[in-house]
Amino acid sequence: MHYSSRLLENAVNEFSKLPGIGEKTALRLVLHLLAQNTEDVGKFSESLTTLKREIRYCKNCGNISDQEICEICASPKRNRELVCIVEDTRDVMAIENTNQYNGLYHVLGGLISPMDGVGPSDLNIEQLVSRVATGEIKEIVLALNATMEGDTTIFYINKKIKDYPLVISVIARGISFGGEIEYTDELTLARSIATRVPYSG
Amino acid sequence: MHYSSRLLENAVNEFSKLPGIGEKTALRLVLHLLAQNTEDVGKFSESLTTLKREIRYCKNCGNISDQEICEICASPKRNRELVCIVEDTRDVMAIENTNQYNGLYHVLGGLISPMDGVGPSDLNIEQLVSRVATGEIKEIVLALNATMEGDTTIFYINKKIKDYPLVISVIARGISFGGEIEYTDELTLARSIATRVPYSG
Repeated sequence: MHYSSRLLENAVNEFSKLPGIGEKTALRLVLHLLAQNTEDVGKFSESLTTLKREIRYCKNCGNISDQEICEICASPKRNRELVCIVEDTRDVMAIENTNQYNGLYHVLGGLISPMDGVGPSDLNIEQLVSRVATGEIKEIVLALNATMEGDTTIFYINKKIKDYPLVISVIARGISFGGEIEYTDELTLARSIATRVPYSG
Repeated sequence: MHYSSRLLENAVNEFSKLPGIGEKTALRLVLHLLAQNTEDVGKFSESLTTLKREIRYCKNCGNISDQEICEICASPKRNRELVCIVEDTRDVMAIENTNQYNGLYHVLGGLISPMDGVGPSDLNIEQLVSRVATGEIKEIVLALNATMEGDTTIFYINKKIKDYPLVISVIARGISFGGEIEYTDELTLARSIATRVPYSG
C-alpha cells in the first residue's frame, strides 16, 4: 500500500505482526488510536511496557502473576492435594470461570510439539516433578487440548510422574452440552460410548 | 473473566477498546506480545507513541504526513488543477493503489453526521474553500462513501463552492467489475442505467 507517512507505515507494520491481524485491520486500529488523545495513546502503550517489565510467573505453578506466588497458590481456601495441569494462563481462566474447581494449577507454558521445535525442556515440567516429589499432591488432573500435541504431552508427563503414589486423571472427552450425536465426529462419539457413566437421575 | 494479574487485566482492557477487538481476542494479542522479547515489545509501543507525537497533517490537503506538506502535494508530477475530496487517509491510499489518478487530494477528516455530532465545522472544509478561492483548481472530484453521510457532505460542499468557476464531479456509481445484475440492489441498478455511457468497443 502507498503510505503518506513512514511513521504510520511503521506502526501499521508493528500491528500486522499480531496474530490474525492483517494490514488493513492494522491500519484501522492504528488510525483509531491516532484519533484518540495523547494521554489515551500513552496509557495504551504504557499498559504493555509495564506488563512486560513487571510481570512475574508464580514460583509454584508457573501462572502469570503480579506477586512471587500467585493468588490461587497463596489462597488458604484451595485444596492443595489436587493439581490441574494446563497449557497456559488462558486455560486457568477458562477453568476458573466454571467456578467448579477448587484445587491448584500447574501451567506448562506450552505443549510438546517437535514440529514447532518445542521439547519437554522448554516447558515447566521439571518444576512439576519437584512439586510431585514433595508428596503433598494426591491427584493430578491433566487438562490439555485434545490434539496430537496435547496427547504427546500427557504421555510424557505420565511417564515422568507415574511412579509417585498419586492418582493421575485426564478430563473427560465426549459430546459437549448442546451437542448433537448426528454431528459428532466418530472418535469423540466412540470415546463417549466407551467411557459412559451411570445415569444419576 | 478471572485474571491472575492486574497488569495483564489492564493491558487486555486497553486492547479491548480497539474497534472490533473483544476481550478474548485482546487477551490473545496481549499474551502474544508478552511472549516476545522486551526489545520487540518496546518497538511496538514506541511505534505508536512516536506516531502520535510526531505525526503532522499536510497544511495543504489535510492528509497524514511526516512533513509540513505531504509528498503528494509536494510532487511536481501531479496535476494541481484536479483535486479529489475524500473522507480520510485510507481513501487516499485506496485511490493511490489504483495508479489511475494524478491529481491532488483534500482530506476532510470525516463526513457530516448529525447523529454522531459531527458538523461541517469539525471537518477540513474551510481550508478547501480557501484552496478553491485561489483559482488554481479547475476540477473537484467528490469521492465520498455512497451513504447518507456521504451524500449530505457532498450536498454541503457543493453549496459552498458551486459559485466558483470550476467543474464539480462525483465518482461514478454503478455495478462493480465482477458484479452480477441479478444480485445488484435496485438503487444502484437504476442509477447505472440512468447514467449509462456510450460503448467504446
